[in-house]
Amino acid sequence: MAEFPATPTSMMPKGVDHSLLVVGSIAFDSIETPNGTVQDALGGSATFFSYTASFFTTPRLVGVVGDDFPDEHRRLLAERRIDTTGLVTQPGKTFRWKGRYHQDMNTRDTLEVHLNVLGTFDPVVPERFRDSTHVFLANSSPVVQARVLDQVRKPRLVLADTMDLWIDTQRGDLLALLPRLDGLLLNDSEAHLLTGENNMVRAGQAVRRLGPGFVIIKKGEHGAMLFSEDGTFVVPAYPTGDVVDPTGAGDSFAGGLLGYLASDDSPPPGRLRRAMAYGTVAASLTVEGFGLDRLKRTDRREINERLDKYRKMLSC
Amino acid sequence: MAEFPATPTSMMPKGVDHSLLVVGSIAFDSIETPNGTVQDALGGSATFFSYTASFFTTPRLVGVVGDDFPDEHRRLLAERRIDTTGLVTQPGKTFRWKGRYHQDMNTRDTLEVHLNVLGTFDPVVPERFRDSTHVFLANSSPVVQARVLDQVRKPRLVLADTMDLWIDTQRGDLLALLPRLDGLLLNDSEAHLLTGENNMVRAGQAVRRLGPGFVIIKKGEHGAMLFSEDGTFVVPAYPTGDVVDPTGAGDSFAGGLLGYLASDDSPPPGRLRRAMAYGTVAASLTVEGFGLDRLKRTDRREINERLDKYRKMLSC
Repeated sequence: MAEFPATPTSMMPKGVDHSLLVVGSIAFDSIETPNGTVQDALGGSATFFSYTASFFTTPRLVGVVGDDFPDEHRRLLAERRIDTTGLVTQPGKTFRWKGRYHQDMNTRDTLEVHLNVLGTFDPVVPERFRDSTHVFLANSSPVVQARVLDQVRKPRLVLADTMDLWIDTQRGDLLALLPRLDGLLLNDSEAHLLTGENNMVRAGQAVRRLGPGFVIIKKGEHGAMLFSEDGTFVVPAYPTGDVVDPTGAGDSFAGGLLGYLASDDSPPPGRLRRAMAYGTVAASLTVEGFGLDRLKRTDRREINERLDKYRKMLSC
Repeated sequence: MAEFPATPTSMMPKGVDHSLLVVGSIAFDSIETPNGTVQDALGGSATFFSYTASFFTTPRLVGVVGDDFPDEHRRLLAERRIDTTGLVTQPGKTFRWKGRYHQDMNTRDTLEVHLNVLGTFDPVVPERFRDSTHVFLANSSPVVQARVLDQVRKPRLVLADTMDLWIDTQRGDLLALLPRLDGLLLNDSEAHLLTGENNMVRAGQAVRRLGPGFVIIKKGEHGAMLFSEDGTFVVPAYPTGDVVDPTGAGDSFAGGLLGYLASDDSPPPGRLRRAMAYGTVAASLTVEGFGLDRLKRTDRREINERLDKYRKMLSC
């Protein structure tokens, strides 16, 4: 690459021997909101995660696209120094998702899902990624997530996302995976579905008893909750008046969180809370544009400035 | 009074010449939740507000009850040093409300409302309360709220609550009241109803343009947002796993907020954020019991301890 304009070398981690792997989807998203629409925008969990994490570290991506995936998108990832050694191109079409957000922007309907090449993808972690210290298993079947994890030698921190579909249809596989995780990320309705608890404090504690070292419950515009051995923590969403498209906010949150953790060696437990704050700020930027639009216009300096504002906002 | 067991004199404000007035309802609440029920518990906005504020200052209460109001309840207020000079007893029955909470404890149905003596109550502020520096106009018709405000000579800080009913039926009167307020308290759906905005950051800013110096949007279990000349601030709810009965949480929040402001002279803008935190902590205690049950078992020390935990939780 000739140039990596958005991340000065001085902002990359120094003396930190971490490496961050993400395995997840790459998608073309077609999105309708009350204020506008977009067709075939680059999206998917691995995209949002790695793009966001690239402001903190040099992420390693494993995923699949079809032969319709344009070079322009590959360049976009390369410019952010995302290592796409694990990006497989298969004959056929890239995964497509179409959704419509309701007036309140908090709820949405999925209109179309075409798994295409993602439907039969069995992720292989390239040999040079197998020493990754930090791993994000983006939303996928817990069977696939476990197979990915089997391929990583000695990860120090494994975070996984999940969804209602797997809780409903592969609960046993998910329960088998949970004790292998350092952290599980899920939203409030999924936490209820998994535990039967309506109260999110109880739900988070109950999920944690299923095995993961820490649990993060995402509440969309209402922020997130962290349950760890250090107790229960709550973070509000960063208040933005410019919510254009919430798609990718959860994966961007994870990208900020894990990107920060993989680039920092300050002591716990403050580190995990700080990571939650970085995730929150990253998610707030993501929702201010369609797809990656807003993230393309940000940099680590703006992220840090927003983090400072956020921290001041929370001081009382 | 012979004794005021719960508030040591050392914790009352020193050298602060503030005085806090609340005008609102006193009620008998009958409440059904998924985990239990209670009949005719002492409630009402003025009750929750003044009881909570009594941990910070000596509130002055104006309200009405019927001749069925027992001495036991009067003693309860007196023991908290609430000045009940403005508590009027009228022939007839005390206001009664009956509600049922849904499984998630965030939504409820009103089953019965019997205004009784409250229906014709025209609040008169006793002469000795007319110099109050801090005023809470609990939820009531904006016409009544304006008439109360007319009776207070030179208040330094006036906070009002409102509800969907008045926004729908007395919008003009409400809009006339707003510029006379320092602060307006309302929940997220009411902010949407008043402004047409779905995004709460925009809604809060829009409400503020209608006149009040600051606006607080309450989001129940998701916390609250503050819009002031110093910007937008967000506070998550204090995470409690013991939500027994959410009734009164909003008024208890206001009681903690205004009680703290009326007992403290530290400089703005930090003061308003700190007040939001006190309100949040007070509300979290309130929901841990039916009616006043949990507040009866707390003291300023526990409130301060929970505030410390909350502040640590927010540091990142």
